[in-house]
Amino acid sequence: MTQNIYDNPQFFAGYATLDRSVKGLEGAPEWPALSAMLPPLLGARVADLGCGYGWFCRYAQQQGAAQITGYDVSARMLEKARSMTGKSPIVYRHADLEKLQLAADSLDLVYSSLALHYLENISGLFATVYQALKPGGILVFSAEHPIYTAPLVQGWVVDKTSQKSWPVNHYQAEGVRISNWFAAGVRKQHRKLATWINLLIANGFTLTHIDEWGPDAQQIAANPALDEEKERPMIFLLSARKP
Amino acid sequence: MTQNIYDNPQFFAGYATLDRSVKGLEGAPEWPALSAMLPPLLGARVADLGCGYGWFCRYAQQQGAAQITGYDVSARMLEKARSMTGKSPIVYRHADLEKLQLAADSLDLVYSSLALHYLENISGLFATVYQALKPGGILVFSAEHPIYTAPLVQGWVVDKTSQKSWPVNHYQAEGVRISNWFAAGVRKQHRKLATWINLLIANGFTLTHIDEWGPDAQQIAANPALDEEKERPMIFLLSARKP
Repeated sequence: MTQNIYDNPQFFAGYATLDRSVKGLEGAPEWPALSAMLPPLLGARVADLGCGYGWFCRYAQQQGAAQITGYDVSARMLEKARSMTGKSPIVYRHADLEKLQLAADSLDLVYSSLALHYLENISGLFATVYQALKPGGILVFSAEHPIYTAPLVQGWVVDKTSQKSWPVNHYQAEGVRISNWFAAGVRKQHRKLATWINLLIANGFTLTHIDEWGPDAQQIAANPALDEEKERPMIFLLSARKP
Repeated sequence: MTQNIYDNPQFFAGYATLDRSVKGLEGAPEWPALSAMLPPLLGARVADLGCGYGWFCRYAQQQGAAQITGYDVSARMLEKARSMTGKSPIVYRHADLEKLQLAADSLDLVYSSLALHYLENISGLFATVYQALKPGGILVFSAEHPIYTAPLVQGWVVDKTSQKSWPVNHYQAEGVRISNWFAAGVRKQHRKLATWINLLIANGFTLTHIDEWGPDAQQIAANPALDEEKERPMIFLLSARKP
């Protein structure tokens, strides 16, 4: 089973301080790019894998989605999501994404934000999602970029000209990476971008768009801490369609 | 027009010493992976963009291709290719790939090895290739990987544990990169992997496979100089189909 770090109290407390936790979608600088990749939500049947506090589920509700199910492995996250949400059409479900079951041909959109890099068996999830989508349905997700996840020790190096660089090593060595992000021993999976893409294709998907996300000049001006994100992508956004 | 560094005598002399120049396809460690992405060549109509010495054209001839045209911007390379090749079905043509014209629906395979990262206008070339392929035809190419091309100054850093890393910076800043590889001032284009892929999709292609190539254990044992290539991909291989 995938590690459920979100139920670690220290991690949960730290995560709660992030802009994307406090402000929701508008606190995530990649949201304009990610939302541009979404299909029309009016009347859509939607699943959110790793729904966290439920920000995206509420957005889908506002956009008129007909059915919205948020799945998360963290009971604490779901409790918080339920406390912020009214009634239907949103349903929150406790689920280990590696054992997820979804009804066949039942969904227009499967969405996931920064959750899938925790999973060991991503091909199994892609197969589950593929069979659950209606023909023409779409998977839109973000995950940590392999440039970011590759190094065994993650951190910037700065040269004598003050140029920040991200030291990439072990790119070809796919598998677990341990990082200390709000808590010690957070387990994530490093997977080449090629592997993400080839597994989607092998499971029947047609790739429609990929974005190795970085901030634009306006975003950096508004939030100078984003400046270093120009140097290397920390996340990627991807959409793939069931033909 | 794209820089034609291959006609620089110093560059040409240096390039001639590479394993991939002396030994041909078998001297290129990515060849087993790249050749596995090719369609059956028997009876195929093939173009090789940036054919160099013509190694691939001769391979296609051996495999029974019906028509093979090798294009290159370097008159020196073409002269060498012609001197090593017999007669039909291979034809060599002098061409700037950014101004290439190809007959519509005429080809089963367009192949290119480590040439396209020199081009400024890659979308124009993809459009040309797309219209030249028959339905079901395929583009198979390799190019320098953006992890490799991103940094303004390319070179390994080594930490106090002797770990080699490739310092990535300016990943989001697409455009020209100047390197000194056999000659000063070699101009290449840095392009995000997402950009390569999205331009293929925008031009009508369906992505079929991508390989962020690295050596396997056997290759490293046979050629220890390849060991560092585990740390970051220097090239990628990609195939895309015209539906």
